[in-house]
Amino acid sequence: MKNTFGQSIAVTIFGESHGDAIGAVIDGLCPGIEVDLDFIDAQLSKRRPSGKTDTPRVEKDNYSILSGVFEGKTTGTPIAIVIPNENTKSADYQYGKARPSHADYSAYCKYHGFEDYRGGGHFSGRITASIVAAGAIAMKALEKINIKIGTHILECAGVRDNAFDNISAEIDALASAKFPVLDIDKGDKMIAQIEDARMDTDSVGGILQTAIYGIPAGVGEPWFDSVESILSHALFSVGGVKGIEFGAGFDMAKMRGSQANDAFEIKGGKITTKTNNNGGINGGITNGMPIVLNLAIKPTPSIAKEQDTVDFTSGEQVTLQIKGRHDPAIVRRACVVVDSVCALAVADMIAQRYGTDIFLKGIK
Amino acid sequence: MKNTFGQSIAVTIFGESHGDAIGAVIDGLCPGIEVDLDFIDAQLSKRRPSGKTDTPRVEKDNYSILSGVFEGKTTGTPIAIVIPNENTKSADYQYGKARPSHADYSAYCKYHGFEDYRGGGHFSGRITASIVAAGAIAMKALEKINIKIGTHILECAGVRDNAFDNISAEIDALASAKFPVLDIDKGDKMIAQIEDARMDTDSVGGILQTAIYGIPAGVGEPWFDSVESILSHALFSVGGVKGIEFGAGFDMAKMRGSQANDAFEIKGGKITTKTNNNGGINGGITNGMPIVLNLAIKPTPSIAKEQDTVDFTSGEQVTLQIKGRHDPAIVRRACVVVDSVCALAVADMIAQRYGTDIFLKGIK
Amino acid sequence: MKNTFGQSIAVTIFGESHGDAIGAVIDGLCPGIEVDLDFIDAQLSKRRPSGKTDTPRVEKDNYSILSGVFEGKTTGTPIAIVIPNENTKSADYQYGKARPSHADYSAYCKYHGFEDYRGGGHFSGRITASIVAAGAIAMKALEKINIKIGTHILECAGVRDNAFDNISAEIDALASAKFPVLDIDKGDKMIAQIEDARMDTDSVGGILQTAIYGIPAGVGEPWFDSVESILSHALFSVGGVKGIEFGAGFDMAKMRGSQANDAFEIKGGKITTKTNNNGGINGGITNGMPIVLNLAIKPTPSIAKEQDTVDFTSGEQVTLQIKGRHDPAIVRRACVVVDSVCALAVADMIAQRYGTDIFLKGIK
Amino acid sequence: MKNTFGQSIAVTIFGESHGDAIGAVIDGLCPGIEVDLDFIDAQLSKRRPSGKTDTPRVEKDNYSILSGVFEGKTTGTPIAIVIPNENTKSADYQYGKARPSHADYSAYCKYHGFEDYRGGGHFSGRITASIVAAGAIAMKALEKINIKIGTHILECAGVRDNAFDNISAEIDALASAKFPVLDIDKGDKMIAQIEDARMDTDSVGGILQTAIYGIPAGVGEPWFDSVESILSHALFSVGGVKGIEFGAGFDMAKMRGSQANDAFEIKGGKITTKTNNNGGINGGITNGMPIVLNLAIKPTPSIAKEQDTVDFTSGEQVTLQIKGRHDPAIVRRACVVVDSVCALAVADMIAQRYGTDIFLKGIK
Repeated sequence: MKNTFGQSIAVTIFGESHGDAIGAVIDGLCPGIEVDLDFIDAQLSKRRPSGKTDTPRVEKDNYSILSGVFEGKTTGTPIAIVIPNENTKSADYQYGKARPSHADYSAYCKYHGFEDYRGGGHFSGRITASIVAAGAIAMKALEKINIKIGTHILECAGVRDNAFDNISAEIDALASAKFPVLDIDKGDKMIAQIEDARMDTDSVGGILQTAIYGIPAGVGEPWFDSVESILSHALFSVGGVKGIEFGAGFDMAKMRGSQANDAFEIKGGKITTKTNNNGGINGGITNGMPIVLNLAIKPTPSIAKEQDTVDFTSGEQVTLQIKGRHDPAIVRRACVVVDSVCALAVADMIAQRYGTDIFLKGIK
Repeated sequence: MKNTFGQSIAVTIFGESHGDAIGAVIDGLCPGIEVDLDFIDAQLSKRRPSGKTDTPRVEKDNYSILSGVFEGKTTGTPIAIVIPNENTKSADYQYGKARPSHADYSAYCKYHGFEDYRGGGHFSGRITASIVAAGAIAMKALEKINIKIGTHILECAGVRDNAFDNISAEIDALASAKFPVLDIDKGDKMIAQIEDARMDTDSVGGILQTAIYGIPAGVGEPWFDSVESILSHALFSVGGVKGIEFGAGFDMAKMRGSQANDAFEIKGGKITTKTNNNGGINGGITNGMPIVLNLAIKPTPSIAKEQDTVDFTSGEQVTLQIKGRHDPAIVRRACVVVDSVCALAVADMIAQRYGTDIFLKGIK
Repeated sequence: MKNTFGQSIAVTIFGESHGDAIGAVIDGLCPGIEVDLDFIDAQLSKRRPSGKTDTPRVEKDNYSILSGVFEGKTTGTPIAIVIPNENTKSADYQYGKARPSHADYSAYCKYHGFEDYRGGGHFSGRITASIVAAGAIAMKALEKINIKIGTHILECAGVRDNAFDNISAEIDALASAKFPVLDIDKGDKMIAQIEDARMDTDSVGGILQTAIYGIPAGVGEPWFDSVESILSHALFSVGGVKGIEFGAGFDMAKMRGSQANDAFEIKGGKITTKTNNNGGINGGITNGMPIVLNLAIKPTPSIAKEQDTVDFTSGEQVTLQIKGRHDPAIVRRACVVVDSVCALAVADMIAQRYGTDIFLKGIK
Repeated sequence: MKNTFGQSIAVTIFGESHGDAIGAVIDGLCPGIEVDLDFIDAQLSKRRPSGKTDTPRVEKDNYSILSGVFEGKTTGTPIAIVIPNENTKSADYQYGKARPSHADYSAYCKYHGFEDYRGGGHFSGRITASIVAAGAIAMKALEKINIKIGTHILECAGVRDNAFDNISAEIDALASAKFPVLDIDKGDKMIAQIEDARMDTDSVGGILQTAIYGIPAGVGEPWFDSVESILSHALFSVGGVKGIEFGAGFDMAKMRGSQANDAFEIKGGKITTKTNNNGGINGGITNGMPIVLNLAIKPTPSIAKEQDTVDFTSGEQVTLQIKGRHDPAIVRRACVVVDSVCALAVADMIAQRYGTDIFLKGIK
């Protein structure tokens, strides 16, 4: 469905980087969920550039909610969110020279030259602001059934953060972290590396780690709507994501079965597993353990260094020096986007299983 | 849509390991595509166990095509394929003791004890035979527009095969390979390692690498229906897949932008890229380069070693020794399954973009 | 989704009139629902030709359930039903002369001559046997939450039956009726008219009236997934249906608001309406009253009279005398098909609203 | 998908009558289609109240297009349209007394009291302005492949207009008609009847007739995505529609096969039918004849007469006198809404069959 994701709870996004506005419509969300404007603001501010690791293009994200909210709560009908674009400098962009690792050329092949190319157009990371606003509303629905989500930078420019260990508390800590890492010292080293890349007119990527805590066992489907299928589908929407692994992921490929298998045990009267190499999912269905996943984020393609490329309007080889304002790393800003995407996808899976009103009624 | 995948060309699968039959329905495939029964047989035989690396449960896969084919060609209406289950030993299975890393417990939470547990039921790898038969038909459609797909074992039990290099020729070679690797010596070493694991009543996993060759630029969608989203959604359906990466994937997380970016150039009069770190996809849309992806396959969970677990019917901690016939590694058999899933997903993306008849008309 | 209908509970159908078999796959149905083989048989027998009003082509409908049922109950995984075609006389059919009001020509335009034309191929009413078998299973799920469905012939060949009045009892009576009318005398007159048409080598159509009893208020969606939208979508699948109206339908077009409006009242402590001109649906959402709808069924297009037509392979005007075995009226046989389609659509709407397990848990 | 309709070209709507704004997002529409703002304005003005047959609530429909249009043409990415609500008088509405034949009570059952009830909230006909704006863009795409659509009031308050006869010319005439009828005298009589109802504090309904001209043969699907299924699904979204029939519809139920069958013939070198009782659709698929359908529109439920009802917050029987500004008939305003819905649905079916770029390339 192109720019729509979800079945019972569906989000539709729209907008271009340098158009009038971007936005999202969330349909199917349970009525009666509090819409906390301060929380939406706080989430948006996590996505906004700030400081040396990010682009200097800063926008206020003065969003409006046009529908679906009445007296501070969701009505159950579509919630339309619009965020105006304010700080655009379209003159920085010219058409034809394909920026390497960007969508310029593939978009040209798809849209035949009618695409809005300014600032990446519809492919811009700017559009994720809509996803963050929508995700903030979904998170409040999940909160009512005690599901919470958090993401930290597991690795950036060779610096490795701790992996999730005490997930519930770590998610709580990340919610108010300035730089989303579990070990602040590692965060400082990452920031230094990012700054270093920026000074070198270059960029860096990294690995994000996300945990979804409190999801009950029995959610998801075998085969085509496995929890891995749904989450990966949603998360590969985020620009720059080039890999995903659940639990031990690619490391499991190196293990033997006797090491990789998660033995079941009874703990606190509950069925649980001793390890979580499967990342909370067996046979595509949650097993009650936290869902844990890692995402590979490629380095920001926009770098100030001169690059070889092609002008696809003339068919000639040219060189390109990208102007404009860009992030030397998007790993920090991507964390809240990933949380938001996960919130929307998890809310949808929950609503499909338990019905649309479950966030009001609670799971029994 | 649970057991259905695809929009313009959709496949629906059904069946349990020890039920009467498994099968698939493919809907929306272009009329006039030759249905090559020998090719379907050949593909099914690649998936069948054979030799020491696999389970001794061997079935003939005497499939029937019940509909959608007339005078040897697709009619354009749903193609139903049924494959009887023949060699079942249900007595090997008992209910309640959750096999670690299997779906027994998560299925119980979802289906409340009504699930057919024998041999993994609907979660069994057996069901992939339907996908292979369906995929074989889709491959013939893709062949008409010069798209081909191949998968090899990139890594198994510490042995690493060459990565794809000369993709078109390598896909052709893999089509008739006994053991799907690019370097036969590495394959022999893998076989020795798998045999070693089997002797040790253990199992191994690995990494598969897939290439999709000949897909035109401009296919796919930005955001939620990115090519990565669609392929990962489909591929995480395959049991045992715990990670996916496109192009350089997780390695890109360690690069700088200047290393990671794929510079465009003109080659043979065509726009192409010097490297393919993005795996043929920019902004979710194909750029004309081959799609290359890697899949992490976990070690087969069924091992003969005694394991700790829980009997979820009694709520007690117990030990479990899995009987039955199992694969010490599924990496070989998974290759043709992965090819088949990709064929179905790619055919769908092509049909969405160019219309349902494109496989008859050809892309201009 | 072409041959698939439904979101939470989806049915996929396949098959051609003269192929090996027809069938259906139902996915998403709640686990633990009793699969009553005798009831499926009884429903199929209602669809089968019998007596003078129907075609002499009679088949036993020796269906098999290949998956999704274990120890007599649904497992929650896809239920595949296959019904072999037995009594086929393909020699009666020739290709090229478009039977008027049939799909021969439109199918040729769509499938470019690759369609299986024998006996109408995939367009044959024969395929509805699969829907009836699938619907019989869905009905047992609905029964658990006290929803029941019945259809009678409201009008045929100028003879008008009573409209539904005491719906619950009338649905019960129709379940075992030989000829589905509320007034048996009117049924006898209809049979005489049908017989008369048959003697005249002609055919007749009619109007069916369906009631869905026990559906709670609050089901459905505003706008695009209104209950009317979903039911009409599903019911126009049935060959020969050319019109649908809910409640007073086209008669409402002649009323004034003061006549048409259904006044609310309290009855037996429950909110209800004095009249039911809206057929149980306000703003696309159920209001707790029974859903009542009428369907226009066109006369069977296959008549033995000579007809003018075109041979689309030669592009010439020709005359055609249809051989083969055909129904002078399908209104009787269509009733159980309509009930089945409604059962599948209603079960889906219920599962979307209340979750997939609702048929086990019951609505509170 | 609730408030989203379409697969290849999908429209999502949002908004409440007395909220800040209503709107629509169209996704998947071909790039390069001219967006004619004057035409959108003209279409919106047809939907706006004007004169004695309509409500005195008049709004300017100062719509904005926020995305998906660049340099006057569609880009191929989602087109977001927002229309502010301006002339709202919320004080006219109170909560709890269910307006008969309105969605107040069914919405309460669905949304548990969280719904925005002012002016009908999300159920208001006001939301159709978004559909009209979206449909106007889709119409320009259809125009490029020579498909056109028109609707007239076939019947209102006992006055019957001529049926479509010379469809192409009649659609052209309707495009600029003040009151959409084929026979202006009949229109004047209708207006008199509507005025009479209004004076009597009552309302009237009617029947609309729509023709879709120029759609090629071979579009649509057998069974669940029949052209009738898709169009009825979309059209029952429009508030007040309680019935739909294709071609001769319910009248066909009274015919014999020999009368009802549409004989094929060659005319102007083209295969066509002598009559069009099937409304251009055989077996769910277009046959190249115009699609013709009729819609039953119920009388506007909002009437000034006192009515019996229930206050669902207190559970008491009460009387209700509806204040506010309402239409004594919506048949005139509904015509452009119906055209717009049809345009979106037809564009989607075309794109599914021929691919997303077909409106640029043309059908060969």
